[in-house]
Amino acid sequence: MLPLIDHLRRRQAIAEQVGDGVLLTTDLTDVRWLTGFVGSSGWAVARGDDLFVGTDGRYGDKATDETAGCDATVIVERHASKLHDRLVELLAGGPVALDPAATNHDRWLTLACDVELVPSESPIRAARRVKDHAEIARIERAASIADAALADVEPEMEGMTELDVRAELEHRMITLGADDRSYDTIVAAGPEHGARPHHGASRRVITEGDTVIIDVGALVDGYHSDMTRSWVIGDASGQQREIYALVAESQRVGLAAVAHGVRASDVDAACRQIFDDAGYLDWYLHGTGHGVGLDIHEPPFHAPASQEVVEAGMVVTVEPGLYRGGFGGFRIEDLVLVTDTGHRLLTHAPKRELN
Amino acid sequence: MLPLIDHLRRRQAIAEQVGDGVLLTTDLTDVRWLTGFVGSSGWAVARGDDLFVGTDGRYGDKATDETAGCDATVIVERHASKLHDRLVELLAGGPVALDPAATNHDRWLTLACDVELVPSESPIRAARRVKDHAEIARIERAASIADAALADVEPEMEGMTELDVRAELEHRMITLGADDRSYDTIVAAGPEHGARPHHGASRRVITEGDTVIIDVGALVDGYHSDMTRSWVIGDASGQQREIYALVAESQRVGLAAVAHGVRASDVDAACRQIFDDAGYLDWYLHGTGHGVGLDIHEPPFHAPASQEVVEAGMVVTVEPGLYRGGFGGFRIEDLVLVTDTGHRLLTHAPKRELN
Repeated sequence: MLPLIDHLRRRQAIAEQVGDGVLLTTDLTDVRWLTGFVGSSGWAVARGDDLFVGTDGRYGDKATDETAGCDATVIVERHASKLHDRLVELLAGGPVALDPAATNHDRWLTLACDVELVPSESPIRAARRVKDHAEIARIERAASIADAALADVEPEMEGMTELDVRAELEHRMITLGADDRSYDTIVAAGPEHGARPHHGASRRVITEGDTVIIDVGALVDGYHSDMTRSWVIGDASGQQREIYALVAESQRVGLAAVAHGVRASDVDAACRQIFDDAGYLDWYLHGTGHGVGLDIHEPPFHAPASQEVVEAGMVVTVEPGLYRGGFGGFRIEDLVLVTDTGHRLLTHAPKRELN
Repeated sequence: MLPLIDHLRRRQAIAEQVGDGVLLTTDLTDVRWLTGFVGSSGWAVARGDDLFVGTDGRYGDKATDETAGCDATVIVERHASKLHDRLVELLAGGPVALDPAATNHDRWLTLACDVELVPSESPIRAARRVKDHAEIARIERAASIADAALADVEPEMEGMTELDVRAELEHRMITLGADDRSYDTIVAAGPEHGARPHHGASRRVITEGDTVIIDVGALVDGYHSDMTRSWVIGDASGQQREIYALVAESQRVGLAAVAHGVRASDVDAACRQIFDDAGYLDWYLHGTGHGVGLDIHEPPFHAPASQEVVEAGMVVTVEPGLYRGGFGGFRIEDLVLVTDTGHRLLTHAPKRELN
């Protein structure tokens, strides 16, 4: 059994931060983290000791059940205009903190007609960055399911289409106990598809000599995992071995850089340096990693311009790669829990040596 | 083969509407519809006869390939700040139309520092409502794949878990040629789960006497289908037969109301009236339908407060349902192409008579 998530503790922690103020969040992931409610429409308001969740008629019973743990007051209205009126009533009389990065512009303007909004970074978003043991247990289970699915499917891959490999991986993860895939599984093989970091799987058949990138994760109780493995079908060419070795070295160096207190930009710089030294920096098309939790991409982001610091309890990826049209590409990605002295790996699928 | 999508024609149609102005869209679905580019990050600018697509390094080659049909100029920058600068350069000198409903508030504020923004409903969104023959072909294929998957899985459902049924349906759709599921397939069985219109599939075993709701669609080249069927496992009770008959009648009446020029609120009212007459209106927890295309939920929305009119060439759902904790629920949903005189069904899975 997975440990229970303590929404009451979260509610209390956020209430302390909100103090005498009023906090509104319209971000559904923030609502889920704070209250337990999972839906495609809703908001939460923290006001003094009170916590309110608003949603529409499709989700009334579900919201009541799911928020029982934090004892929120659920407000259900079938019509959007009535739900808006109820929200305005709740927010009356004082300035309301709302995160502009998590709010649609149109919605902001509509609310601002009736309510005094104060743009503020959400304390929920900040709190979400460091994971508790119940969250780590979910992410770790998700990661182990993806490990097992890849181990099952990998040996059968040659001759299958990218799309069939994706379907097999995703089906296997459900069979192994995942609630869903974590994101659209990436299966990118050969000189053109492999050169695209975010290629969608196609009906192309995976063939001897192809570089292969598989980027796969599972979803467990809302929590994501994220992992990438790469290799070559059959014997690798000299250039394939050279590029793969660079990616593997960059990823080792990046992992070694992760620890509490390190700047996210330094993790990126460590990986990037390996590519720069070898003259392949222009084959590196993306940042080096990101946080993972209820969202597949969360802060902190390991990127050159990042101002963030990595902290113990964060769960982050390290995922350098090299890509070039006509060659293909490789990416290696692990998911790790940041600790005081370094990190603990959550993904354990073996990394190949190229033949 | 599916007919090609004519992005050049779309580009010309939008350029005519933009005239001497400048249009920016940051909505990824609008970008896809207009240019063919599919990614998780990007924007498009229409300015006189020019069309620009901007994105980050992960998508450079992909964007160039995918926009070849409309001959857009692709701008690629690896760093977000540089891509922002390039966008500001493109937009310099004149007022820029941007849809507030499709833009994040934070992003709006950032852009507004450098550019004169004019809040305007996007002409792309308006144009997307009426589908052309290439879009209808994709939606129709997606619908037929979901029909076939349901026909395969339905007879084996008793004794399976909701999650297993979902996994089988989704796997079957891929095997039948779908690129993906259209949305998280809903499998909701029994007195509690069936009472929740948007229940996620669980490990509950589907058992004799359960009401069952299956809401399933496929994705073909970015286009969605959407369909719901309901029934009872084994023999139905008197109440189950009564409620099912009401839902079936409401859905027939709703379908009959769909035609070019009809108000979307009247489609909703037609379905709602059946439930109201029978004294079950408080079991009806949602609107009656929505448009379907590159997004699974698009305008028009069949809802009491809708101001929209249904037009020939739109693809819409009609999906009344009744739900109650302790009883369960039923929903029946078809996807139809609106025609001048009525509609053409795109979903053909048989609707059950209850035993």
